Amino acid sequence: MNTDGDLHLVLSLSCPDRPGIVSAVAGLLAEHGGNITESQQFGDPSTGLFFMRVQVQTAAPRDALEQALGELAARFDMEWKLDVVGRPMRTLILVSKAGHCLSDLAYRQRGERLPIDVVGVVSNHTVLEDLARFYGYPFHHVPVTRETKAAAEARLLELVEQYDVELVVLARYMQVLSDDLCRRLEGRVINIHHSFLPSFKGARPYAQAHDRGVKLIGATAHYVTADLDEGPIIEQDVERVDHSDDEQEMVALGEDVERRVLARAVRWHAEHRVLRDGGRTVVFR
Amino acid sequence: MNTDGDLHLVLSLSCPDRPGIVSAVAGLLAEHGGNITESQQFGDPSTGLFFMRVQVQTAAPRDALEQALGELAARFDMEWKLDVVGRPMRTLILVSKAGHCLSDLAYRQRGERLPIDVVGVVSNHTVLEDLARFYGYPFHHVPVTRETKAAAEARLLELVEQYDVELVVLARYMQVLSDDLCRRLEGRVINIHHSFLPSFKGARPYAQAHDRGVKLIGATAHYVTADLDEGPIIEQDVERVDHSDDEQEMVALGEDVERRVLARAVRWHAEHRVLRDGGRTVVFR
Amino acid sequence: MNTDGDLHLVLSLSCPDRPGIVSAVAGLLAEHGGNITESQQFGDPSTGLFFMRVQVQTAAPRDALEQALGELAARFDMEWKLDVVGRPMRTLILVSKAGHCLSDLAYRQRGERLPIDVVGVVSNHTVLEDLARFYGYPFHHVPVTRETKAAAEARLLELVEQYDVELVVLARYMQVLSDDLCRRLEGRVINIHHSFLPSFKGARPYAQAHDRGVKLIGATAHYVTADLDEGPIIEQDVERVDHSDDEQEMVALGEDVERRVLARAVRWHAEHRVLRDGGRTVVFR
Amino acid sequence: MNTDGDLHLVLSLSCPDRPGIVSAVAGLLAEHGGNITESQQFGDPSTGLFFMRVQVQTAAPRDALEQALGELAARFDMEWKLDVVGRPMRTLILVSKAGHCLSDLAYRQRGERLPIDVVGVVSNHTVLEDLARFYGYPFHHVPVTRETKAAAEARLLELVEQYDVELVVLARYMQVLSDDLCRRLEGRVINIHHSFLPSFKGARPYAQAHDRGVKLIGATAHYVTADLDEGPIIEQDVERVDHSDDEQEMVALGEDVERRVLARAVRWHAEHRVLRDGGRTVVFR
Repeated sequence: MNTDGDLHLVLSLSCPDRPGIVSAVAGLLAEHGGNITESQQFGDPSTGLFFMRVQVQTAAPRDALEQALGELAARFDMEWKLDVVGRPMRTLILVSKAGHCLSDLAYRQRGERLPIDVVGVVSNHTVLEDLARFYGYPFHHVPVTRETKAAAEARLLELVEQYDVELVVLARYMQVLSDDLCRRLEGRVINIHHSFLPSFKGARPYAQAHDRGVKLIGATAHYVTADLDEGPIIEQDVERVDHSDDEQEMVALGEDVERRVLARAVRWHAEHRVLRDGGRTVVFR
Repeated sequence: MNTDGDLHLVLSLSCPDRPGIVSAVAGLLAEHGGNITESQQFGDPSTGLFFMRVQVQTAAPRDALEQALGELAARFDMEWKLDVVGRPMRTLILVSKAGHCLSDLAYRQRGERLPIDVVGVVSNHTVLEDLARFYGYPFHHVPVTRETKAAAEARLLELVEQYDVELVVLARYMQVLSDDLCRRLEGRVINIHHSFLPSFKGARPYAQAHDRGVKLIGATAHYVTADLDEGPIIEQDVERVDHSDDEQEMVALGEDVERRVLARAVRWHAEHRVLRDGGRTVVFR
Repeated sequence: MNTDGDLHLVLSLSCPDRPGIVSAVAGLLAEHGGNITESQQFGDPSTGLFFMRVQVQTAAPRDALEQALGELAARFDMEWKLDVVGRPMRTLILVSKAGHCLSDLAYRQRGERLPIDVVGVVSNHTVLEDLARFYGYPFHHVPVTRETKAAAEARLLELVEQYDVELVVLARYMQVLSDDLCRRLEGRVINIHHSFLPSFKGARPYAQAHDRGVKLIGATAHYVTADLDEGPIIEQDVERVDHSDDEQEMVALGEDVERRVLARAVRWHAEHRVLRDGGRTVVFR
Repeated sequence: MNTDGDLHLVLSLSCPDRPGIVSAVAGLLAEHGGNITESQQFGDPSTGLFFMRVQVQTAAPRDALEQALGELAARFDMEWKLDVVGRPMRTLILVSKAGHCLSDLAYRQRGERLPIDVVGVVSNHTVLEDLARFYGYPFHHVPVTRETKAAAEARLLELVEQYDVELVVLARYMQVLSDDLCRRLEGRVINIHHSFLPSFKGARPYAQAHDRGVKLIGATAHYVTADLDEGPIIEQDVERVDHSDDEQEMVALGEDVERRVLARAVRWHAEHRVLRDGGRTVVFR
């Protein structure tokens, strides 16, 4: 088959589960000359929802495909997104003073391992300004105090709108977003929590972990919801510790897990591999 | 939808890759009232082959479905298998003296974690007879010496035919099968090699590993081909070791990896999740 | 050096940390002609305690060594134990219906991978009687109802005394021990909790894990204290799960982690590698 | 005890194994008012060598301690090193075009997670000059062709001498060092090999791994010897891959393992935790 000049598209969708969905989607794509290069689906018996992600090469015009999908979606009560495979997602990264996550995301982005377009780095401190600028990211210093919190969030929203931001990454941003902001950006904000949730919610999880004498420490990347540290989990991982690791050493080991876990979550989100399934996620890796 | 009395089937197939396969298969299943509960596919650019595994619930008669699949297969030059989900695969387990793999497989089989029907245990020793009998498996003592090797293999083939064996598991069977036997049973024999292949082929891999000072030891489950230790790999895993682990300790740690890796490979094979892709495997987990 | 006929001993100790302990212990052992084959120590700044484990080969009479150690211990306010390396620890295993942990411990014990002498298996059910008997372990059926709980615990204590039991393993024993029994046996009871503590304490942790949508499930081996699921942790491990794993599949995957974690904890305890450090443990692996 | 103004020293040593070494060393340190904060030892039965690493706080003058150690060393035929805990080791990093390892080492060094003092970065290309300069490392462009190889190695040795370099890190430096240079710098050069040695020695290991259909890919950090890819292994780790990962994806996944493994090896070396034991290493983590 000749695929020169073809579009390589990714379609992700969810809808109530019922027979015939795969056949209908595959049939529609075939009618538009589509060649499926990757496809995954999952029906969740506990929520009754069906999820699908398809990568397809096609010579058909994108708007014709979109119109056909719109009709199909109406029939199946479907939510769907169509995007070009590999298109960098417009991303805003929020940080405070710790730079391990920003450094890692930036390195991967520059090396073309992470399909994001970093439209800006926002911080309530200036420690990481030089790192951001080294990677060519516009840096915005937005200090946050109790008095200026509302103004700071307004500035954040302004940036989100100005750059048409699709994804906000809290890369160890040590401020809690207001419920209102969480709701406005729901599904578009990924946080890295420095603990294996649901253990050790809240502050200083490594101190808690050391006190409890755990033998593994972990990190959790999740979507941010108004319910702090309770949003749908995208990815988790752990690292082994032992009695000789004090809190400081656990923090150092934890940073490695945090950046690994966050990088995976951001990549999967940017590749449209993560779908919401109630309070959980479906991740088509 | 009412699925009482429906069949739950698993279809696995491979064929040369070209547009329209997913659509054709999904369409065929939809025409037979099938509800797809699980589906995975993969096109390998390096071999030009396409692989698919679908689980489907259907009220249609199985022979009607098989006839339709036969016609489709002819059109796409497809190899395919249709089976009932969860049907235990008739399995013969070959062992020598080490029982860790047999013990593990047996425990999982009895606990309904492994869809195999162990039709017999064959050994060139009698050490494991009581373990086999405890689990209710017929035990066959087939000693092997240089003189009796041909007769032993004939006896093995006889058992394979008598019990219509679908899978032979070499669960630390310390005899090398003849090229001829390998060819006759190709695709139906899984071996556990006590090393992270392709490192340390051949005898006493843990001694080799200790001499080389490796920091991880591993195990590899693979299909047996005439080319010793070179068959397509199904699964691998590793365990951390350090300078204080001598060969004996590595053997002990290795046994844990071996039985874990073998159990996974046998389960995936019995669930029709492993497809041959030249010298490699596609594993739809 | 000639070590034929020498004793191979293991000394474990803890005391308030201060300079000179290692030198004093090493000096004492050297005076008794001891050759240190393995030694580890750890000073915990957060509790001010010092821990040490030494394996030593010596031709000196054991009682001379014990007397010298007793004097040293008095000087350093030391708790200590001296044992023969590899001596099987007298162990009672408690189970209910699930046999994966018992099966695994038994297999390792028989294969001489676990230095325990299983003096009996106690169960509130009879499901695992044949498994226990296959491995040659005396089986005691001690049913537990609300009315008979006190009598059942009395019977348990009787067995502990009768067999001079050093270690009680709760190998998925689904009864909560009374506070009084916990206190009497403190430091001698190891439990396997089917969750990555402190997440998901209490009942049906895999259902909780599935609801929360975690991406890793775990297991925790810990000493039993009167404070349920809060005893000092000995070992933890995790296994990866994804959206397609329902509660039942998580249970199956969890069983593998549970038996792996429990086997390690029992082995380390039986080898005197685990020392209590307040609410934590020091594990000299 | 008052440890203000005390030195915190690390002593690492190896010698032929015989009774009394631990006692002699601990006694010597106690005589100099030393308080042992960390200590590990290992006797290797297969080589007959004994290894020890001790961290000790002491108010004694360092030269008095060194003189006493010198006398002890003569008695036990001991090789030993004494250093200040945490002193950054003077390190030269060699790179070509791939920056994932340099980026990771630099980030850790700046965050004080890695006790090295990067006295320079040498490359046969200029791609990574800006990264090196961002972290404040002097950058030396030393091109290598068949004709200039000898001159390039001479320049390298010059830098090693000029900066009194203690450690040379080949952070994906794509040039093979000459046998002569390997011998001159033996024990001071760490390489990261992009494969799980001894599998896939030589060029393009990820292509080899993909062809073989392995299910795990790995990386190996080892000391460089004249025998290419055969030097003593310091650390290894793996990452899971599956049939859908092509060579390019394996390379990307491999980079994560490589930088993790190299960072650990460099840290352990810089902390004097790695001791040579013939063709193997003892690593006191």
